[in-house]
Amino acid sequence: MFGQPHHYPFRRALAEMEPYVPGEQPQGGKFVKLNTNENPYPAAQAVVEAICSAATTGLERYPDPYANAFRNRAAEVLGLPGPDWIMAGNGSDEILTILVRALVGEGQRLRMPYPSYILYATLADIQGALWERLEFDKNWRLPAAFADGCDDLRLVFLPNPNSPSGTVEPPEKVLQLAEQLPCPLVIDEAYADFAEANCLSLVQQNENIFVTRSLSKSYALAGLRFGFVVAQPHRIAELMKIKDSYNCDTLSIAAATAAVGSTQWLQENVARIRATRTRMEARLKQLGFRVTPSQANFVWCEHHESSHKQIYQTLKRQQILVRYMNFPAWGDGLRISVGTDQQVDACMLLLEQCV
Amino acid sequence: MFGQPHHYPFRRALAEMEPYVPGEQPQGGKFVKLNTNENPYPAAQAVVEAICSAATTGLERYPDPYANAFRNRAAEVLGLPGPDWIMAGNGSDEILTILVRALVGEGQRLRMPYPSYILYATLADIQGALWERLEFDKNWRLPAAFADGCDDLRLVFLPNPNSPSGTVEPPEKVLQLAEQLPCPLVIDEAYADFAEANCLSLVQQNENIFVTRSLSKSYALAGLRFGFVVAQPHRIAELMKIKDSYNCDTLSIAAATAAVGSTQWLQENVARIRATRTRMEARLKQLGFRVTPSQANFVWCEHHESSHKQIYQTLKRQQILVRYMNFPAWGDGLRISVGTDQQVDACMLLLEQCV
Repeated sequence: MFGQPHHYPFRRALAEMEPYVPGEQPQGGKFVKLNTNENPYPAAQAVVEAICSAATTGLERYPDPYANAFRNRAAEVLGLPGPDWIMAGNGSDEILTILVRALVGEGQRLRMPYPSYILYATLADIQGALWERLEFDKNWRLPAAFADGCDDLRLVFLPNPNSPSGTVEPPEKVLQLAEQLPCPLVIDEAYADFAEANCLSLVQQNENIFVTRSLSKSYALAGLRFGFVVAQPHRIAELMKIKDSYNCDTLSIAAATAAVGSTQWLQENVARIRATRTRMEARLKQLGFRVTPSQANFVWCEHHESSHKQIYQTLKRQQILVRYMNFPAWGDGLRISVGTDQQVDACMLLLEQCV
Repeated sequence: MFGQPHHYPFRRALAEMEPYVPGEQPQGGKFVKLNTNENPYPAAQAVVEAICSAATTGLERYPDPYANAFRNRAAEVLGLPGPDWIMAGNGSDEILTILVRALVGEGQRLRMPYPSYILYATLADIQGALWERLEFDKNWRLPAAFADGCDDLRLVFLPNPNSPSGTVEPPEKVLQLAEQLPCPLVIDEAYADFAEANCLSLVQQNENIFVTRSLSKSYALAGLRFGFVVAQPHRIAELMKIKDSYNCDTLSIAAATAAVGSTQWLQENVARIRATRTRMEARLKQLGFRVTPSQANFVWCEHHESSHKQIYQTLKRQQILVRYMNFPAWGDGLRISVGTDQQVDACMLLLEQCV
């Protein structure tokens, strides 16, 4: 990567950066996949029907550039003042990319807690921006310095629930944080549907708060690529300048509209995941893991006698994928997604033999 | 847009830029839509089947981050050395965005011919980059200065066929251009399937050539959002660092793979469009238009007696949308997409009454 010959034409930032490596996505084989926090259940039937119907109606025309069908339905379901509080994107990854491109220039700074979602630093690197990571304390609470200002700070990311911990910073604390910060605060709520509280209503109180959501996890639509951001309308209008004109396709708009309207499906799905999560946490404790109480669809666990990496490898040989995560200067552990009861039981059975 | 209060948190480049305005996309009403170069025919049946099948199989898992099913099939059909010569994207708009982000930093420069695709300048503006437009001559040939170097020039766009003209720069000239330029040359081939020649094979001769393609036009899949770029594998590898991990969704990968494999459908569709284009050009000439011979699925025409804007408005009142384009310091005209014979006849009948 370094020492490129002089004809390397890309931006210097690109030459020097490490690409983000997503969790393994084996395209063949029969894996029990508990490594990237996908929902183990199929999406609502209404979603599949909406897709086939849109495909049959025809794809020769461009989609609605604003995804208004989705925005109208989502504003209603989420209790927002109107559709202009929402911008839809090609997965919440695209939303995060757009936020960084909108807010952080070359040489400017963004902040995130640590350990958290690794992608934030990659997005900063692509932009040629600087980033700083402030460590959570041992109970996964934010340090006081997280609210400090500094001249070139342009954006702060707070994943809430956080990954890999599954912990939540309460909304009143988040609002305080936003009020102290000199720059926008992006609350990444990819996992919020599994939590007891969320920060969606805070956007009405503070124009510097942006809440991002994903349909990948709680709506079982990781394959669809659909996410959105909620903020005050004058903020959304600026973000719209950056997105590609037709960033969401006809099929995903139809599917997302059907999904967000399937409120009963969501409730039932979340209840199932939470019940399995409770069983899983109890069992992991019995097996000697230190388990962080989770408000997401995964569980972070550490074992003080066995090697996390070896456990991961042993499970993988048996076709069970969990996420081994090693955070430099912090430590390592396993992040296990909440699958079906059957998948989780299979994983626990194998774990018994490794620890 | 200007004179933002001090709490405007976005990058200065954003405050100052004009957003790109895509062609009108009326979501209701019965318009004959000849304004955004969509294909008037439905996509191949195999595409619809692939979508419904993928939706039914399930969307709860993340898609293949590399869209390998598509890349393998496309490499085969297009006669490329291998799938690693291709990166897939969420429409060729996303591919163009990624190329600008990869190659052009703040304050650096990109070049494009004029008049051409307006989006290039917007992408530069978003990036905080500079851009320069070099005017085509009256026969839509590139000026000699288009090949000149300058210190901060990092990227040159060449839409080929060009829009709005539908004209093509021959491959041997394009290769010469790439050899003279000190930086990468992106050949935007969104309309190349309708042309007599294309530049795809040039990527094997010059590592600074990037060819972009779209499935929106010739594959009748504007609603799907799928495009790709072809370049040498070490170039593709760098671009991969910038794209979102899962930039193409499960449905669009399945659909695009089916589409690119539907070679007979493509041939027949292109033949139909070309035949209608020939009739359309002849009729426009009879109506007193100066018509630029087109190798795309649209026709650029100018009338020296009637007002282009008034013609556009009259047609719109009758539910026929064409694209009125006004290029500052250059002039205006009408770009009319090649629809079905029936749509084009309806348009011509109305034009008879306006000019």
